[in-house]
Amino acid sequence: MDIEQFRKAGYQAIDRICDYYYSLQERSVVSKVEPGYLRQHIPLEPPEKGEDFQAIADDYQKFILPGLTHWQHPSFFAYFPTACTFEGMLGDLYASSTCNPGFNWLASPACTELEAIVMDWAASFLGLSPAFTNASGIGGGVIQTTASDSVLATVVAARARYQREHPDVKLEDLVIYTTSQTHSLGSKAGLVFGVHVRAIDVDLDDQLSLRGEALRNALEEDARIGRHPFILIATVGSTSSGAVDSIPEIREVAKDYPSLWVHIDAAWAGSALSCPENRGVLHLEDFNAFADSVCTNFHKWGLVNFDCSALWVRNRKNLTEALDITPTYLRTKHGDAGTVIDYRNWHLSLGRRFRSLKLWFVLRGFGVEGFRTYIRRCIELNNLFAQQVKTSEHLQLVTKPSLALTVFRLIPRPVSPDQPKFSLGPLNELNRIFFGRLSARDDIMLTQTSLNGIFCVRLAVGAARTTEEHVQQAYDIVSKEAKVALESWEQTANTAGAIIVA
Amino acid sequence: MDIEQFRKAGYQAIDRICDYYYSLQERSVVSKVEPGYLRQHIPLEPPEKGEDFQAIADDYQKFILPGLTHWQHPSFFAYFPTACTFEGMLGDLYASSTCNPGFNWLASPACTELEAIVMDWAASFLGLSPAFTNASGIGGGVIQTTASDSVLATVVAARARYQREHPDVKLEDLVIYTTSQTHSLGSKAGLVFGVHVRAIDVDLDDQLSLRGEALRNALEEDARIGRHPFILIATVGSTSSGAVDSIPEIREVAKDYPSLWVHIDAAWAGSALSCPENRGVLHLEDFNAFADSVCTNFHKWGLVNFDCSALWVRNRKNLTEALDITPTYLRTKHGDAGTVIDYRNWHLSLGRRFRSLKLWFVLRGFGVEGFRTYIRRCIELNNLFAQQVKTSEHLQLVTKPSLALTVFRLIPRPVSPDQPKFSLGPLNELNRIFFGRLSARDDIMLTQTSLNGIFCVRLAVGAARTTEEHVQQAYDIVSKEAKVALESWEQTANTAGAIIVA
Repeated sequence: MDIEQFRKAGYQAIDRICDYYYSLQERSVVSKVEPGYLRQHIPLEPPEKGEDFQAIADDYQKFILPGLTHWQHPSFFAYFPTACTFEGMLGDLYASSTCNPGFNWLASPACTELEAIVMDWAASFLGLSPAFTNASGIGGGVIQTTASDSVLATVVAARARYQREHPDVKLEDLVIYTTSQTHSLGSKAGLVFGVHVRAIDVDLDDQLSLRGEALRNALEEDARIGRHPFILIATVGSTSSGAVDSIPEIREVAKDYPSLWVHIDAAWAGSALSCPENRGVLHLEDFNAFADSVCTNFHKWGLVNFDCSALWVRNRKNLTEALDITPTYLRTKHGDAGTVIDYRNWHLSLGRRFRSLKLWFVLRGFGVEGFRTYIRRCIELNNLFAQQVKTSEHLQLVTKPSLALTVFRLIPRPVSPDQPKFSLGPLNELNRIFFGRLSARDDIMLTQTSLNGIFCVRLAVGAARTTEEHVQQAYDIVSKEAKVALESWEQTANTAGAIIVA
Repeated sequence: MDIEQFRKAGYQAIDRICDYYYSLQERSVVSKVEPGYLRQHIPLEPPEKGEDFQAIADDYQKFILPGLTHWQHPSFFAYFPTACTFEGMLGDLYASSTCNPGFNWLASPACTELEAIVMDWAASFLGLSPAFTNASGIGGGVIQTTASDSVLATVVAARARYQREHPDVKLEDLVIYTTSQTHSLGSKAGLVFGVHVRAIDVDLDDQLSLRGEALRNALEEDARIGRHPFILIATVGSTSSGAVDSIPEIREVAKDYPSLWVHIDAAWAGSALSCPENRGVLHLEDFNAFADSVCTNFHKWGLVNFDCSALWVRNRKNLTEALDITPTYLRTKHGDAGTVIDYRNWHLSLGRRFRSLKLWFVLRGFGVEGFRTYIRRCIELNNLFAQQVKTSEHLQLVTKPSLALTVFRLIPRPVSPDQPKFSLGPLNELNRIFFGRLSARDDIMLTQTSLNGIFCVRLAVGAARTTEEHVQQAYDIVSKEAKVALESWEQTANTAGAIIVA
């Protein structure tokens, strides 16, 4: 493809993306394809001769688009949102047009310098302590691929620091701390590094938040049996329910365990720190004061296209001392002199995309105000949904709504005031039927979760085009399917005599 | 930005990318900026109000472009190439326009299905054994971020397999095998996992290739001292010199060590397997017969924009058994039934970009023929350069040219036939002066390396727009700087009497 052919194909791509967004609302959220659908449309071998790009672009429309789940659809309420803004897209396009892997300063000075500046912008507008900025010269921010990636780099840094301080401790005795509500990245880190993971239990009465006492008990117990917890992955806004660990209490406990690295995983909720009114409930002041690292994914709720996971550390040396390898072919005079950041020593991989460009485009395009407006609208829309669940006949909030996330379940109204409570088993069965009905629809997408054994349904607001109307529609659908599920369950259950167990 | 504003900004981006490629040759390859340049142009805080996109796009031209190293410049011969094709760019653009993280089948069926198919295309046209294809149902291919990422996932799989077979072995006793010429990803994997790395020495006489005997000696020695090598990262086309380990000999040794995972890192040279004439020298038949995993980065020499690291494994269960964590919110009926691939269990992270789209666009746009034509042209151009080095007065090939890579150094012609040989120290000093002169230029970019203590200069051909003329220019520049370096060195050295040491 020559330059002029690219111009033509590029214009067409832009036009088709515009068409896609104009038509988005008319599409079903969930793809209707069945497993294996694509093998029926695509040959099993690559073509011998190059094909005309028009044919390729048309096949994208014909075969790929129908197989996509439309995460940007206004009725997409599943998982967490994946940001997708035009500003982000353009940032990605410009970055992709020069393709440089930016692993050290010389490999493309602008990539390193923009990342260092824009991560400081982001730190500032989220209210992070200046200690985390690149300008501090001690702490610093770096863009990683995903929150898992951020955690993996952090675990390596924490482990290296711990081993420097405790050179005789065996790998087998190291422990990563999480809670039973931590994202699967916690257990996956355990698999990756081959070390123990201790998932501390948290209570629904505490809104699934890790409390100081539970942490202290675990630390004391592990000390007694010769295990060495070296990092705690604390969550500010968990995936299942938006739970926020009790950072003030963790801070108190951490004073007695200075070797324990505390990582704040705010992958989703971090974006909400942009609004000052959310900083209290997210314990910003506390983690600013003591956390070793903080992560938020701008590609989730932060308007920046995937991938853009922002990681800040209080001491960059913990990363570089754990990860720096500089072979001859990567040495440069600036790197040797220490006058520049060589980001390759801040993460696991060597090569990296120029991701700061899209973050820069988004922060400038939206401005602090625009970013906050978006976050606040998502929270308001979620409150609208949660409010209706609260007052509904059959639905129940399982936890307090958290920012833009509601976790709820279906619960039958007692026939009489003295009817015994329903037991968990049948209720979960009912909610599985309920969620089964919701997930069979293609005009809305929600996800399931389990909170301490309670099967629940999650609704997360975040697509940029979601309005009050879509949220109302979502409630109406949920409400309707709840009734149908309830009726079918009551019939079956009454027959089986299984409903009521105290 | 609304849809029509995006159309306008998108057209402009396409036009500016066209301008960039029209002007590329007139730009200097290396950026002239000094460390810290960008802080002088960008405010320290993000704007309060959103800005007009035109201002942002203009700032990209004004402040970012001048700070880029132009990896696509026809006179870029540094590191290895980073692919950047219009087809790849368009694939990235379409993928970025729908932004879905594709971590399981349901999250976007097309993402998983296209990746499974296109990785089979790639396996087929590189000549990989059908055992590595997704269609085999046992092996399979997955796109990772980088070759480091591929190695990390592989090490986790290899370690888990080894520990299943040897449950009593301590992490402390595990060893990763590399050679002294393996990419830094080998030592970095050691840092990441906290395990030993043994870099087996290789000889210049063997063209820096790992020989069977050296491997066997290391294995026997480690067995004696109770260490457990569980993976060998064998290289097919090393970064420093394009060295190819002796896979046939490794295959023989591996027969006696069935628990040793052999990973083939063909990050750069893998693309050359597309041409049947390269398959012998790259030992395809041998590693097809026994390797546990193979990696090639299409984003290096494979025409696909960064990032696109292709990893194939002979047994996908080794990945999934080591990495599968499926919390409730990620469970789907298809995943539970095992009818679909859930790629999140094939790598370290959870979320992933829709990278197969650009691979599909490139393989269709170029076809097998177009891809081969490009690879063959790069090799021819490199041979053109190497041939001139060979016959030059002062330059010397340090190793045989490997595919599209030449490693050479400057070496003074003896004044008389009975003059003693120059010793390594002064020669390295001379070559540092030589490389210093080359790297002070901004019209060409090369990199340095060190081969068993010999300081060398590398030239790698790969930018899509490089022609015979650019390679000739490169040789002329190299030749000219060599003479100047030699003169200045001879003056200094003669004064100091330091040249001649037998």
